[in-house]
Amino acid sequence: MVKTVAEIARFLDGQLVGDGTAQISAVSGIAEAKPGEITFLATPQYHRFLRTTAASAVIVPPSVEFPQKTLIRVHDPRLAFARVMRLFYACFPEGPQGIHQTAVIGQRVNLGHGVNIGALVCIEDQVTVGDDVTIFPGVFIGRESQIGSGTVIYANATIREQTVIGKNVIIHSGTVIGSDGFGYAKQGDKHLKIPQKGIVVIEDEVEIGANVAIDRATLGATRIGRGAKIDNLVQLGHNVVIGPHCLVVAQVGISGSTEIGSGVILAGQVGLVGHIKIGDDSIIGAQSGVRKSVPPGSVLFGYPARPHVKAKRIEACLNRLPELFKKVNALERALKLLKRK
Amino acid sequence: MVKTVAEIARFLDGQLVGDGTAQISAVSGIAEAKPGEITFLATPQYHRFLRTTAASAVIVPPSVEFPQKTLIRVHDPRLAFARVMRLFYACFPEGPQGIHQTAVIGQRVNLGHGVNIGALVCIEDQVTVGDDVTIFPGVFIGRESQIGSGTVIYANATIREQTVIGKNVIIHSGTVIGSDGFGYAKQGDKHLKIPQKGIVVIEDEVEIGANVAIDRATLGATRIGRGAKIDNLVQLGHNVVIGPHCLVVAQVGISGSTEIGSGVILAGQVGLVGHIKIGDDSIIGAQSGVRKSVPPGSVLFGYPARPHVKAKRIEACLNRLPELFKKVNALERALKLLKRK
Amino acid sequence: MVKTVAEIARFLDGQLVGDGTAQISAVSGIAEAKPGEITFLATPQYHRFLRTTAASAVIVPPSVEFPQKTLIRVHDPRLAFARVMRLFYACFPEGPQGIHQTAVIGQRVNLGHGVNIGALVCIEDQVTVGDDVTIFPGVFIGRESQIGSGTVIYANATIREQTVIGKNVIIHSGTVIGSDGFGYAKQGDKHLKIPQKGIVVIEDEVEIGANVAIDRATLGATRIGRGAKIDNLVQLGHNVVIGPHCLVVAQVGISGSTEIGSGVILAGQVGLVGHIKIGDDSIIGAQSGVRKSVPPGSVLFGYPARPHVKAKRIEACLNRLPELFKKVNALERALKLLKRK
Repeated sequence: MVKTVAEIARFLDGQLVGDGTAQISAVSGIAEAKPGEITFLATPQYHRFLRTTAASAVIVPPSVEFPQKTLIRVHDPRLAFARVMRLFYACFPEGPQGIHQTAVIGQRVNLGHGVNIGALVCIEDQVTVGDDVTIFPGVFIGRESQIGSGTVIYANATIREQTVIGKNVIIHSGTVIGSDGFGYAKQGDKHLKIPQKGIVVIEDEVEIGANVAIDRATLGATRIGRGAKIDNLVQLGHNVVIGPHCLVVAQVGISGSTEIGSGVILAGQVGLVGHIKIGDDSIIGAQSGVRKSVPPGSVLFGYPARPHVKAKRIEACLNRLPELFKKVNALERALKLLKRK
Repeated sequence: MVKTVAEIARFLDGQLVGDGTAQISAVSGIAEAKPGEITFLATPQYHRFLRTTAASAVIVPPSVEFPQKTLIRVHDPRLAFARVMRLFYACFPEGPQGIHQTAVIGQRVNLGHGVNIGALVCIEDQVTVGDDVTIFPGVFIGRESQIGSGTVIYANATIREQTVIGKNVIIHSGTVIGSDGFGYAKQGDKHLKIPQKGIVVIEDEVEIGANVAIDRATLGATRIGRGAKIDNLVQLGHNVVIGPHCLVVAQVGISGSTEIGSGVILAGQVGLVGHIKIGDDSIIGAQSGVRKSVPPGSVLFGYPARPHVKAKRIEACLNRLPELFKKVNALERALKLLKRK
Repeated sequence: MVKTVAEIARFLDGQLVGDGTAQISAVSGIAEAKPGEITFLATPQYHRFLRTTAASAVIVPPSVEFPQKTLIRVHDPRLAFARVMRLFYACFPEGPQGIHQTAVIGQRVNLGHGVNIGALVCIEDQVTVGDDVTIFPGVFIGRESQIGSGTVIYANATIREQTVIGKNVIIHSGTVIGSDGFGYAKQGDKHLKIPQKGIVVIEDEVEIGANVAIDRATLGATRIGRGAKIDNLVQLGHNVVIGPHCLVVAQVGISGSTEIGSGVILAGQVGLVGHIKIGDDSIIGAQSGVRKSVPPGSVLFGYPARPHVKAKRIEACLNRLPELFKKVNALERALKLLKRK
């Protein structure tokens, strides 16, 4: 694929500054880019690389000036970067073609058009696979599951029985969907297992990272809302509900029956107790622990999570806490002296 | 399966309040239940659903009154729920039947009666598999391992060589048992690998969640005690010992050689350093970090973990810490003024 | 394998104290060792076991005296233990021999001498596998990947396309290398996926634990430096760089584009934000959260991570924080009284 800089500028609805005739055949990082490649100014601190980059063109925010280089000025450089990446590259590697002869496919499995199933895949009975689905080698899909059209499941992922997966979903390797919820009742010293009869529903356009664990519901459904993106090694307990277009960063853990609104961002390693609700568009800072429901638009941080401004203030106080102890001791001594007088 | 409400009340040793003749064919959540289904009052805050639920009967704590509904009063509603779930539902999905022709089974493998081995399973040489064991597709079992009768291993789990698994154990998908411990000796700048020659022993009735990692011992055994329940994405280092009937919630990490007593609860994302002991029946709150051995019955919380009451008190103080700084500054000024006088 | 104590002492360059003629055939823990076995004094607190151990010889630090036992005195008992373990034991279990007939191997795959590929392995097209590589059952290796000689990949690991793995690397079960980075651009309410076109490079002598997730770079490479050791369930985001000889303990999470110097130790459950640099030989305590770049030799601890000494001081202050509140209140009252006078 080759495009001129001018063609790319037009595609991005950006402002071309300089010569638009150079032929571009790849996207590259600003430090590594070679002639014939386009790059982008990701953050202002990389501005110095404008001087040294060998790229034939640079995508920049509106305000950037640099006459020695061909620039494409855009309002949202990150979005422009995403779009130019998608212009040059596919979102998926070349995968299996057709149904591999070593795949083990059960009875009454319903395969759509253009389905690709890799080597050593196992699909149990009564699974429905939509059109243009690609399943990489080593994947297991349990009985009565449904896979929507355009979905891609990477190698060695595990989809347990009766899981419902929407269209254009991406599931990465090693991920387990539909494992039993962690549900027991105490019976004397022992823990009596509660059968986990619910399912997992994954709506359209969801992406789920590698080595994630999503438990099926005890009753009803664990649900990942449309367009939500789940990073690697995340734990979602039984009956968790993730709203549409959430971002759940790596190693987050969400306990059973907690509900996350739409557009929420949970940063890395956040932990949420069970049975709470996180309001729409909330942002929870990395490693925070949330124990109570919070209203829409909350910005929380810390362990336990507190409103961001308060958490920052406490953190600043902590830095000066040893001083405070000294100060109070000094005050005590001064007061004693004063009293004696 | 159909039971009358009266039959269920008798099975639960509960008090039937209302008409016991309705036929029940399913268990459902209180908000979703339909006629012909039984539900339960999980927490007092769901009391309002008694008015609206369409369930034919509701399992409730002893004190609940609601004349419009058929109730079954029980002393322990959670246990009753578990028992009624087990009455209506199996703990396991329908799995593989018999030995699938694509399973690869080594030499001198000893299979009990009624063993089910799914497609694309690999069992290495000299493995012993007890009666009525079910192994789902894609599982790997390393040489000389022993699997006790009634055990179920879900798809794509990995059991390394010489692992000893008891009876009626459940191991979920993606879990790795018997990986090498993280053991090195510093040799100049480098880390010299210490061969990990020990094993993992998993006692009867243990359940292990999805994508868990349990390392084999350096020498001796990493051991999970009878009836312990391990949630998803937990890390257990080499030579860790988990006592019987512990609950280890998702994403907990336990470093090498640490010993957990019996009946301990470790909440989500807890971290324990190596070479410590956690006394029987202790409870460690979510995300806590424990660095020292603690006696039986400890209730700890926080980072670092402190006795629960103390941790709560410090947390409350932190909320008022910015005020305290102001107060101390005010005191300082007041004292200065006073001194001048 | 049998060696006399004298031979082992010579091998370790240690000082033999006592009778060197006993035949040793195994290494054992000090509490469990039997005659004919050698053991070691791991920590001073195990000194009391010298009295009771049945081992025929004990490896000890230089200062230890215990005339009733044959001792081998060495300067670095941990290193000596590692070396004697390696003398008696292999670092790997017996694995697959040759190419198993159920392995699925693509086109133009280049296999070196002495390569062992287990059952149900899938190797896609154009993969290069060096000499003496062992690949356990169920592993997936994506197209155009390169595996250096002497490398061992355990069962059910997943290596995505174009991954470059060096020599004598060990990759444990369930680990996923080369999954897509968590990269999106906001487009209205939606998150537009950025194609992840980079790769993962794993240098020689690296060991990677079980159920780890290492994302491929967006552009360029995610890189694990020579001799680094990564424990179980670690998350490494796109474009992360780990320097040579680092130790990354279990459940650590490192966000995109962060760079770790050489010889760094990240203890368990540490979280690092993206786009920062951790200087060479730094040590970050367990569960710490690092948000800013830190210079070489930093010793940090806490959430947020602070210099170790400061963090310890703040922690000590926190323990006395409730008292401080009381003290300040007392001061306030005293001052009021004084003022009235």
